[in-house]
Amino acid sequence: MARYKLTLEYDGGPFVGWQRQKNGPSVQEAIERAILAFSGETLTVHGAGRTDAGVHASGQVAHVDLAKDHETDTVRDALNYHLKPHPIAVMAVSRVDESFHARFSAIERTYEYRILARRPPATVDQGRVWHVPVGLDAAAMQGAADRLVGKHDFTSFRAAFCQAKSPVKTLDELAVERVGDLITVTARARSFLRSQVRALVGSIKLVGEGRWSADDVANALEKRDRAAAGPTAPPDGLYLRAVRYPED
Amino acid sequence: MARYKLTLEYDGGPFVGWQRQKNGPSVQEAIERAILAFSGETLTVHGAGRTDAGVHASGQVAHVDLAKDHETDTVRDALNYHLKPHPIAVMAVSRVDESFHARFSAIERTYEYRILARRPPATVDQGRVWHVPVGLDAAAMQGAADRLVGKHDFTSFRAAFCQAKSPVKTLDELAVERVGDLITVTARARSFLRSQVRALVGSIKLVGEGRWSADDVANALEKRDRAAAGPTAPPDGLYLRAVRYPED
Repeated sequence: MARYKLTLEYDGGPFVGWQRQKNGPSVQEAIERAILAFSGETLTVHGAGRTDAGVHASGQVAHVDLAKDHETDTVRDALNYHLKPHPIAVMAVSRVDESFHARFSAIERTYEYRILARRPPATVDQGRVWHVPVGLDAAAMQGAADRLVGKHDFTSFRAAFCQAKSPVKTLDELAVERVGDLITVTARARSFLRSQVRALVGSIKLVGEGRWSADDVANALEKRDRAAAGPTAPPDGLYLRAVRYPED
Repeated sequence: MARYKLTLEYDGGPFVGWQRQKNGPSVQEAIERAILAFSGETLTVHGAGRTDAGVHASGQVAHVDLAKDHETDTVRDALNYHLKPHPIAVMAVSRVDESFHARFSAIERTYEYRILARRPPATVDQGRVWHVPVGLDAAAMQGAADRLVGKHDFTSFRAAFCQAKSPVKTLDELAVERVGDLITVTARARSFLRSQVRALVGSIKLVGEGRWSADDVANALEKRDRAAAGPTAPPDGLYLRAVRYPED
């Protein structure tokens, strides 16, 4: 048996999310089918993050155990061949030992959220950004984001269906950057609650619009009640950018 | 009568091109239908550049004559409303006088061509870049591009169906830039022949691969024969970025 680490990029648009589900095509299933076509094995691929429907990845990580030793470049090229025409690419493959687990060994995840803040609609970026039809104050958004960084009970920013035992997480970075009409929010933590990044972005966007203050965001955090915070931002703008491991 | 200048952004993927055609939906037709829905007038919209099927625009310019005076913001918002769900956005509207013609008054066009040079396929950028599955030498490409700048007979780099009277054009800029796996070629001239940018990119890409030298590109130009140059790059990577007028 040989364990392989896969680094993945995908357009989440056509998928019900990372995880295999009965109601539609998932990224996990597409990769497992490609593995079946390559090696003849019916296997489970374990992902570092269960991205929701419509959420993209530029640096998702997964692992899988194949029966045989293969050249890592052969695994990458064969999977990319069998993944066509799905918008999923295996960017890199490496051999890892059996103690490596894509999800449980991960020590840090970085997500990126892209907002197109302008009156005209999105065209070439449709499905790849959250289109907000008003200008946003990126500096005010950063001011609110600063109040969310650190170790907190993030109950106000987790999905109702989130199954994590504890709502306490340490948010290491929440950075807001603007280039023209495009605002990028980078969120970095050891791990996140379900829909946490989208909930955080949904609230700091209200600050960018001038409808909320940084204090409103801090108060929402304090209340430990999902209803106290802003709406969840749509999946279109979210990208799982990187997953870090101790050996990196 | 009031003449309006429209600045447009669009995803060329679903269209047969800018120009109205019998065999499918065009950008021009979509805008003319939006105008009909807005003002009740059946009008012709004149574009600065007839982008081909699949070619995108971030700064196409067009003009149209409406019967009445409207606030320019009203025209922009109304057209964007009626253009839904087409991936076309009216970015800006201004009033111009009757001497302004989107195509004939233009003094400079800038195109951008995006190449994703990496072994794994494109995912989130599918249809928005030319995926070339090998690394490209951007410096060598620039060396070849430098041989194409200036006033030349570009017969070797025009489509067979190009109807321009003269194949002589002055190419003011052909710049190659790399950021990670993404190579961007910027082409700037008063005007271009049909498919000229895609033909230029198709040849300098051969230099990036090491299959051609800068001399081969210069020789192809010299031969004044389309068959002497490289293949035409696909439309997916091409964007009409800007059109300049004397008053700008």
